[in-house]
Amino acid sequence: MHTIGYAAQDAHSPLAPFNFERRELRANDVALEVLYCGVCHSDLHQTRDDWKDWGPTRYPCIPGHEVIGRVVAVGSGVHRHAVGDAVAVGTMVDSCQHCDQCHRGEEQLCREFPTVTYNGQDRIDGTTTFGGYAKHLVVREEFVLKVPAGLDASRAGPLLCAGITVYSPLRQWNVGPGSRVGVIGIGGLGHLAVRLAVGLGATVTVLTRSEAKAAEAHALGADRVLVSTSAPAMAAATSAFDLLIDTIPVPHDLSPYLGLLDVEGVLVIVGNLGDMAGFSSLPLVIGRRRITGSPAGGIAQTQEMLDFCARKNILPDCELIAIDTINEAFERMERGDVRYRFVIDMATLTHG
Amino acid sequence: MHTIGYAAQDAHSPLAPFNFERRELRANDVALEVLYCGVCHSDLHQTRDDWKDWGPTRYPCIPGHEVIGRVVAVGSGVHRHAVGDAVAVGTMVDSCQHCDQCHRGEEQLCREFPTVTYNGQDRIDGTTTFGGYAKHLVVREEFVLKVPAGLDASRAGPLLCAGITVYSPLRQWNVGPGSRVGVIGIGGLGHLAVRLAVGLGATVTVLTRSEAKAAEAHALGADRVLVSTSAPAMAAATSAFDLLIDTIPVPHDLSPYLGLLDVEGVLVIVGNLGDMAGFSSLPLVIGRRRITGSPAGGIAQTQEMLDFCARKNILPDCELIAIDTINEAFERMERGDVRYRFVIDMATLTHG
Repeated sequence: MHTIGYAAQDAHSPLAPFNFERRELRANDVALEVLYCGVCHSDLHQTRDDWKDWGPTRYPCIPGHEVIGRVVAVGSGVHRHAVGDAVAVGTMVDSCQHCDQCHRGEEQLCREFPTVTYNGQDRIDGTTTFGGYAKHLVVREEFVLKVPAGLDASRAGPLLCAGITVYSPLRQWNVGPGSRVGVIGIGGLGHLAVRLAVGLGATVTVLTRSEAKAAEAHALGADRVLVSTSAPAMAAATSAFDLLIDTIPVPHDLSPYLGLLDVEGVLVIVGNLGDMAGFSSLPLVIGRRRITGSPAGGIAQTQEMLDFCARKNILPDCELIAIDTINEAFERMERGDVRYRFVIDMATLTHG
Repeated sequence: MHTIGYAAQDAHSPLAPFNFERRELRANDVALEVLYCGVCHSDLHQTRDDWKDWGPTRYPCIPGHEVIGRVVAVGSGVHRHAVGDAVAVGTMVDSCQHCDQCHRGEEQLCREFPTVTYNGQDRIDGTTTFGGYAKHLVVREEFVLKVPAGLDASRAGPLLCAGITVYSPLRQWNVGPGSRVGVIGIGGLGHLAVRLAVGLGATVTVLTRSEAKAAEAHALGADRVLVSTSAPAMAAATSAFDLLIDTIPVPHDLSPYLGLLDVEGVLVIVGNLGDMAGFSSLPLVIGRRRITGSPAGGIAQTQEMLDFCARKNILPDCELIAIDTINEAFERMERGDVRYRFVIDMATLTHG
């Protein structure tokens, strides 16, 4: 299938239009027309080869893993989806399907590593995967999600990465009515964490360095705001949380936050993949507190989240952009100038 | 009750004989003659005021919280213990008894802090608690444990602190047949962790920096030895553990160990209460791995452990010493010159 996307040709060039072929449909493939694609920090890091220590970017690179679309063709063996269905694709497009993690529905933890939506390697033909900054996408049916009726397609994209990344730990740690959840940082992930935790019935506090963000936090639905630069406020919040979702995207010292956890409380790192600063082991030892991390979520849980968001009317705040402004959007995202997530309107991508 | 102990009079003086009074028995008190008392690193730190940042040592200081004894008198309301019973006392002698943690049997996590066996403050009369380097001890009956028949009293002392400190996380994380447990470091805590984990049915690996410790590890019952300074051996052990018990008593970098944990595997810090080095968040995020800590255990669990050790014939390796050699023992303990724990034979303490 001939199509068009936006690709980086190397680490230093802006994204630009790029004509390419999507594979012919295999029996279990779904072809979709991309309608919207969220813009994730990962897109920027991958196109700029920021993660070369973990594996180089293969160019051309077409990013995008927060995809909302419509089915335009299906392979001969597809039974989960039909032409015309509203569908979505997230951070993975395949996995081994036979390991213990795949069997328990945690494909993101696949023992053979999931095939990621871009810069991955197709498990059958070995080609590099191209993401959702494109007019069309071809994906194995098991990795295609259903967009439930009532979910605004133009805003749902960021749920596929930012959303599931914070929803998964909320569910893993059994957040519900009575849970005391703190969200550290309000950005793309943090603002969704607040809405999702509120939706699950938790009492939610936003932890922010600045009092100025209090109104913003309350507008998102947070019950409380804790200004982390205020020593008295932090001291008063000792042992006040069951779960802290840490969305800070840069290395930082966890020590100020650990004492906020109650006995056996959990701090989950979702926002940073780098080297953290040192920390005091004292609050861990005397309170059995826990530090952990979480990647995105499995396919079944991602579908559960989409259904939950439709039912609860939970959506990210998005700024809809034309694809020819993507390079400016990257620059704005880098300086935190977005409330809270860009979404590309793929109708603005036309064959040249 | 007039008695004698060994006390430090300040941070710089050696321990020396000290005559003092134990309180008259309250209705719920048990008086015991101390027969043996284990020597813990904490004893050394407290007498030297090493923990002044968390609270100064009050002198005179009589350390000792691994106490084995015999009941010599009971208060009018005591019903759990009788004169002549073989009993033990660990790191706590009281707690609030009404908070959620006390109610669930985790007195060591008491919301009002447990009263520690030495350098604590008695909840009724406000006096400083004196530990087990003494001929007699008076303790509230709920904090007096039973030494089961068959447990060698001369070696059981270290179970009360070192033993429960490693047993508690093994039980919290459901170690049993099929569990893959790694023990980092073989000292007082580590060697008991190996024996207890083996006793619980786990497959146990000792992680050590030196190949020279392999024979020692196998002699303790370990199934395997992993030399942590060998990059190929460490790489081959990726994702090989469900639980790592980290007994290293000094600050260190956790990063080399985190990748050894399987998905949702847990590293438990029990050996260090200080500032840890930085660490990479990557293995936490991509594998939902967990870092936590653990203090000693509750009274019911400590009794469970003593009963378990009697049933399984699990004991620490001890060097029995006379109390007048305690200052040399401290020096030897400081340089790691003990296999693996000193125990004071309190018959060597006589009224002068």
